[in-house]
Amino acid sequence: MGGVSARLEDLPLRADLRGQKPYGAPQAPLPVALNVNENTHPVPQDVADDIVDSIAIALRDVNRYPDREFTALREGFADYLGHGLTREQIWAANGSNEVLQHILQAFAGPGRSAFGFGPTYSMYPLLTRGTGAEWVAGARADDYTIDPADAARQVADAAPDVVFLCSPNNPTGTPLRLDAIEAVYEASNGIVIVDEAYFEFAPGDERSALTLLPGRERLVVSRTMSKAFAFAGARVGYLAADPALIDALRLVRLPYHLSALTQAAASAALRHAPTMLRMVDDIVGQRDRIGATVEALGYTPHESWTNFVLFGGVADPAATWRALYDEGVLIRDVGIPHHLRVTAGTEEETTAFLDALASVGSAA
Amino acid sequence: MGGVSARLEDLPLRADLRGQKPYGAPQAPLPVALNVNENTHPVPQDVADDIVDSIAIALRDVNRYPDREFTALREGFADYLGHGLTREQIWAANGSNEVLQHILQAFAGPGRSAFGFGPTYSMYPLLTRGTGAEWVAGARADDYTIDPADAARQVADAAPDVVFLCSPNNPTGTPLRLDAIEAVYEASNGIVIVDEAYFEFAPGDERSALTLLPGRERLVVSRTMSKAFAFAGARVGYLAADPALIDALRLVRLPYHLSALTQAAASAALRHAPTMLRMVDDIVGQRDRIGATVEALGYTPHESWTNFVLFGGVADPAATWRALYDEGVLIRDVGIPHHLRVTAGTEEETTAFLDALASVGSAA
Repeated sequence: MGGVSARLEDLPLRADLRGQKPYGAPQAPLPVALNVNENTHPVPQDVADDIVDSIAIALRDVNRYPDREFTALREGFADYLGHGLTREQIWAANGSNEVLQHILQAFAGPGRSAFGFGPTYSMYPLLTRGTGAEWVAGARADDYTIDPADAARQVADAAPDVVFLCSPNNPTGTPLRLDAIEAVYEASNGIVIVDEAYFEFAPGDERSALTLLPGRERLVVSRTMSKAFAFAGARVGYLAADPALIDALRLVRLPYHLSALTQAAASAALRHAPTMLRMVDDIVGQRDRIGATVEALGYTPHESWTNFVLFGGVADPAATWRALYDEGVLIRDVGIPHHLRVTAGTEEETTAFLDALASVGSAA
Repeated sequence: MGGVSARLEDLPLRADLRGQKPYGAPQAPLPVALNVNENTHPVPQDVADDIVDSIAIALRDVNRYPDREFTALREGFADYLGHGLTREQIWAANGSNEVLQHILQAFAGPGRSAFGFGPTYSMYPLLTRGTGAEWVAGARADDYTIDPADAARQVADAAPDVVFLCSPNNPTGTPLRLDAIEAVYEASNGIVIVDEAYFEFAPGDERSALTLLPGRERLVVSRTMSKAFAFAGARVGYLAADPALIDALRLVRLPYHLSALTQAAASAALRHAPTMLRMVDDIVGQRDRIGATVEALGYTPHESWTNFVLFGGVADPAATWRALYDEGVLIRDVGIPHHLRVTAGTEEETTAFLDALASVGSAA
């Protein structure tokens, strides 16, 4: 094109964006990447073949706009979630971030606020501010748990329009009790989102917040296919809520926001849910192995119901992160002092991480 | 779930959304659907096969998050557009609506305004208000053209933060002169978007607004794969602009907004651009046939450089629309008095429309 490129400061950018940096974990090509809580098990070949076949069929009509209501996919999610849910109670979008953004666009936005108990998923404040709403940070106990009565008091005091409850919590792995959700709901007049992105990794006998939906029209339970379904690259998040709340999301979504290829791929993967979820047991096993091993090394792992482990007792997280990086193992410094977070990978990846950590030395 | 569903009025919806209806043309299963300016030619089988192969490869890593920078796809768009563009000047998202939304989030939003010359693409005001900005409607001449001096005066008076110039214009089909773009750019201090969604249907010797990019860091040229590339179902829009402007969009996009499957499918389709664009000549032929035939029936078609024709002289658009509907032909009443809009379909679909229109009778 010739000529010198402009600088961002030369453009009439919104004042609230000036000086900001784009969100994003480093995408470094290391042999062992355990930094963004992906499912490191590839989709099994027979499932991938069926997904390809479904996409090939969808391509026959790809010259037409997709089903704006993604009806078949919503039925697939309702069947998968169970609890008597029907497609009228289901919504989906390009990743759970977009699902959460739709909720914020409908119920938060300028002049309103959203609330979460920190430390929690770092996208909540970014999504909130991105829609022009104010972020209000609540506090957890020292072990990152949430006490129902204390949580209800904090929410009542803040009176937010949207509450985020991450269950189990990212980046700490902490379980959330259903009575805490009930207490927060009662204390709030706003939308209460229970983000169950990692719920499939919780103990099998635990009750989902889906069981709390009847009679609670302001309650939302969000999920993702990125983790248990090993589908991070396909960008599919979803939620269950009262049909009236789903209607509200129709007012803010872009028309045809879910492509025909995404709809076909996700519907096909859902048909293979039992196969996809068989990987979950392996991952839970590696997660518990990480917990036990880092504890033996003198670190303090936090209880995790997810596919990752947050561990404390790290004298210098930046130095340990770098030492692991130099060994070809990428984990995450989530900004909690003296802590690091690692995703439970395959057995081989987990071994590589644990060996590398052991070679760094025990906790101070 | 049992129990009665809540009503939308029971939920704490934002005040500015109350009483609104979701956007969307009717998705009616009629034999001849010429209502939303799709490319009615399916993707050729050899191209579809290559897309499927590319998606099959992408599925091997679908458990990982996609390339957040969609580098290969941006290179594909730069190559396709030509004019010496490089990937640093390219952005893409899930449909051009999301591309436009990113621009509005970065440069408009609460307390700011966006401007367009009506009648124009009906999503512009919806997208603008969806980001909290104010929509300001400018005026066209009676034949829907835009006079450079008059346009510059209107833009200077309104002083908007973002200007939309649809070239050629939807829903009227009207060409836009490059000197009008230059005049509007000079008259504005904001971002000027030239939406070339239908540009591939313009006469082959016409210059794109891409030729105006050098030295104009506030100019954006947006495109879509939905029309010429017969890829509406895949949801892929894109734009070219100064690299600094692309950096601004990185601040507002959701991380990993483009799935690995979308990136693979779009990159594969771009490799077959000459095959995909061969359909364009057929469509242009049918468009011109529509213009000539409706004129012979006594209607007044407007000049079109797109894949559709807006025609006036319709005594009762709702009645004519319904009569065509009853014949199995779906076209669009875009709300312009005494006008209807029809997409140029295949030869067979176009014949079905023209025969049905003739059976309705000539213009009043």
